[in-house]
Amino acid sequence: MDKVKEFEPIFHPNSMAVVGASSDEDKPGNRFLRAMIEFGFKGKLYPVNPEQSEILGRKTYPCIREIPEPVDFAYISTPASSVPRIIEDCVAKGVRAVEIFTAGFSEVGEEGHRLEQEIVALAKGNLRIIGPNCFGVYFPHGGLTLMPGPKYPKESGNIALISQSGGLATHFIWAASGYGLRFSKVMSYGNACDLNESDFLEYLAYDPETKTIAAYVEGVKDGKRFFDLAKGLLGRKPLIIWKGGLTETGKRAVNSHTGSMGGEKAVWQAFSRQTGTVLVDNFEEFLDTTAIFPHFSEGVGRRVAVVGGGGSVGVAASDACEQVGLQIPTSPPDIQQQLRVLLPPAGTSIRNPVDIGTPTLPPSVLQKVLEILLSWDGIDTLIIDRIFLYGTPQLVGMPGADSEKRAEVLVDIRKRVKKPLLAILGELATNVDKIDMETDRRRVQDRFLQAGIAVSPSLQRAVKALSNVCSYYEKACTDK
Amino acid sequence: MDKVKEFEPIFHPNSMAVVGASSDEDKPGNRFLRAMIEFGFKGKLYPVNPEQSEILGRKTYPCIREIPEPVDFAYISTPASSVPRIIEDCVAKGVRAVEIFTAGFSEVGEEGHRLEQEIVALAKGNLRIIGPNCFGVYFPHGGLTLMPGPKYPKESGNIALISQSGGLATHFIWAASGYGLRFSKVMSYGNACDLNESDFLEYLAYDPETKTIAAYVEGVKDGKRFFDLAKGLLGRKPLIIWKGGLTETGKRAVNSHTGSMGGEKAVWQAFSRQTGTVLVDNFEEFLDTTAIFPHFSEGVGRRVAVVGGGGSVGVAASDACEQVGLQIPTSPPDIQQQLRVLLPPAGTSIRNPVDIGTPTLPPSVLQKVLEILLSWDGIDTLIIDRIFLYGTPQLVGMPGADSEKRAEVLVDIRKRVKKPLLAILGELATNVDKIDMETDRRRVQDRFLQAGIAVSPSLQRAVKALSNVCSYYEKACTDK
Repeated sequence: MDKVKEFEPIFHPNSMAVVGASSDEDKPGNRFLRAMIEFGFKGKLYPVNPEQSEILGRKTYPCIREIPEPVDFAYISTPASSVPRIIEDCVAKGVRAVEIFTAGFSEVGEEGHRLEQEIVALAKGNLRIIGPNCFGVYFPHGGLTLMPGPKYPKESGNIALISQSGGLATHFIWAASGYGLRFSKVMSYGNACDLNESDFLEYLAYDPETKTIAAYVEGVKDGKRFFDLAKGLLGRKPLIIWKGGLTETGKRAVNSHTGSMGGEKAVWQAFSRQTGTVLVDNFEEFLDTTAIFPHFSEGVGRRVAVVGGGGSVGVAASDACEQVGLQIPTSPPDIQQQLRVLLPPAGTSIRNPVDIGTPTLPPSVLQKVLEILLSWDGIDTLIIDRIFLYGTPQLVGMPGADSEKRAEVLVDIRKRVKKPLLAILGELATNVDKIDMETDRRRVQDRFLQAGIAVSPSLQRAVKALSNVCSYYEKACTDK
Repeated sequence: MDKVKEFEPIFHPNSMAVVGASSDEDKPGNRFLRAMIEFGFKGKLYPVNPEQSEILGRKTYPCIREIPEPVDFAYISTPASSVPRIIEDCVAKGVRAVEIFTAGFSEVGEEGHRLEQEIVALAKGNLRIIGPNCFGVYFPHGGLTLMPGPKYPKESGNIALISQSGGLATHFIWAASGYGLRFSKVMSYGNACDLNESDFLEYLAYDPETKTIAAYVEGVKDGKRFFDLAKGLLGRKPLIIWKGGLTETGKRAVNSHTGSMGGEKAVWQAFSRQTGTVLVDNFEEFLDTTAIFPHFSEGVGRRVAVVGGGGSVGVAASDACEQVGLQIPTSPPDIQQQLRVLLPPAGTSIRNPVDIGTPTLPPSVLQKVLEILLSWDGIDTLIIDRIFLYGTPQLVGMPGADSEKRAEVLVDIRKRVKKPLLAILGELATNVDKIDMETDRRRVQDRFLQAGIAVSPSLQRAVKALSNVCSYYEKACTDK
């Protein structure tokens, strides 16, 4: 595929120049070079700086043309006015692609726009540009990382992120890694003067490493092409888009951020309906939806059973589910009868939502309750809230053994049951002196994620994400 | 005030009986008694259990009537069928109030309803009942705590919570304590067969300890009285209500939880408009709005300046603010000129939202940027996002000193400036092996809260809460 070949120098460079490298720790050229070294890039790295002969222990060249070996890819963080000359150097050297960190192009107005047009013209037919005003690519498999990311996960995964904002990309990688996500490729692309969102989407459509695509987009260069690509992904790879700047105030902000045009909310909603793209509204929804997708497949549906360690969980779940279009069907008589044997009539509810009465139900009883509900073919997903963190010494001053055992009940069930499980591990006290409670919470979360159980820090967030996943598969099935 | 006197035996009991106390650690009567002892109740505690003579080192009585000294208040966790007899005993003993943990009353149907009516009749004119099907009261000043809460904060504060759900109350106390909230009184009141939401509201209206009231309500017994009380609070004490069960599915759930009737969303929206009550929709909004109130006073307004360490912060803030009715006015020329001296034209924005270009701006520059914005009388609140956690070794592999210094900049400004400051300390990687990042986050959060700076884990959540506070004060001013 041509598109994959086009990205060859970006994702598989044998050598990379860092133009604007510096021994000053506050300069991006220093931080990028250090990040690449620490992250473990296997190719050759050539710092370029006319005023220094060695940076971070590497021989440094005054100009990219003077590097004695071939250079595939270059990172550029010199001042904007110097970038055209550097692009000329790159063309002369035979560099095939650049990522330009430098800002001060079309996002700052007329003069910047002219400068941006100049570098586009110089590069055309010679090399491809990511940026300017971007952080570039993170590709763990190839040892490539974004500027502040020497400590990003080194393992690859099957999630791709394209993000017009570099800051958002770095923040998302951290947050998503907490939910067990690992990335195939991340591309922060800023002003998108050459390679743009459609190019990345087309590449990712064919990328065998990528199964799910998340995109933070401020503006779209070619609406028709983007639409067709998004539509083509339906049923093959879920596409989740957070479109920044859909309000009047937001439009003004995207213009000064990446020089993009905002867009109308109604247009994007129609886009979402017609392409099956999941359109999200904010960072949490973007993160949650992306994180939850790998846990669900085409079998996912809107019928939910909820098990809560307390009655208010059921009330909150009922309201939240109905608001996002998920259903909580009443459990049929045979399921109710089986549950009634285990749960006393007082202080519990067997109708769905199922209130087990106390978060500290004995593990053996919890196991049976969950198994009974999972045997009910009238539900598609089981949500469990306010159970697994309770009974710990930190929280209630009691021995914590049962708390761990309750978590193991779910892990064990996961091995035997196909139906998706979604555990809510809610916010606890967030003071620094309660950090042990958070450690417990994370231990359970990591354990669940490892076992293939979806987790969320909030019922509200979880059901919104689940509804998004349902919408995607409903559209994908209808359009088959 | 009569209402305050009525609550005297509840909040200032000299002695308390625990009917259903047990040496079995899994029984609520054991856990409640232990919680009270550990929490440090200063009055006398009398376990009551006909089959044991000593529980947790305390002499135990077979019946409350046989306690040789007066008993003001009693906790009851014996089976539902025994409760009428115990109420008779309490009346005979001269007990003035009880909190009934036991469930199995009107929430389970006809027979339970009859039983509940029976205890109401027995108590009438003799003693007051909280519950049944509740966790009772938490009152740190008096050494009273809820069942699972020996480790709740022992310091008092000025937030009151009334909660029809005990589980929700316990969860809220933990979560709110993380945001520095401390409680005057918490009352979990379940089925509300005698004392109900209106009684609590009336009491809290006069309680000098209480400045803000949060209420989780599933049903209201006397709508007119509740309306009048809520309306009377406007301009005196903010009232935040999370009404559970406003959807069809939710109504079913509140009925099996506390035997309550749901209610219509439109009715509650009208209630909110007419009384100035802040109506929230879910746990996070309930928590955030309650937590943010103490940081804002009548001077609060909808004009916001946003400072972001990266351009996507400004975009997200713009969209989020507009969606909830907050304004982000463009900064006037003199403010822009002052900012331009500090921030290079490339990679930043000075218009508001202000993009400082990098989360790791030198502290001295950050200080000036914030001071310039705070000198602008066109804004009411300053929101700062994606700045204070960056530059730490865990996150970017760099020395962390500047990160701490940036946090101190805000603490220092807080001392000199009156305008409310709201810092967003967003979700970072949530794996257990990244717990050090969370410790850093919490250290900054605790520092800010202590200094009187509002914090939130999410921009989205923060602006919704801020908008709620604005709505409250707008209504309070209009109605003056």
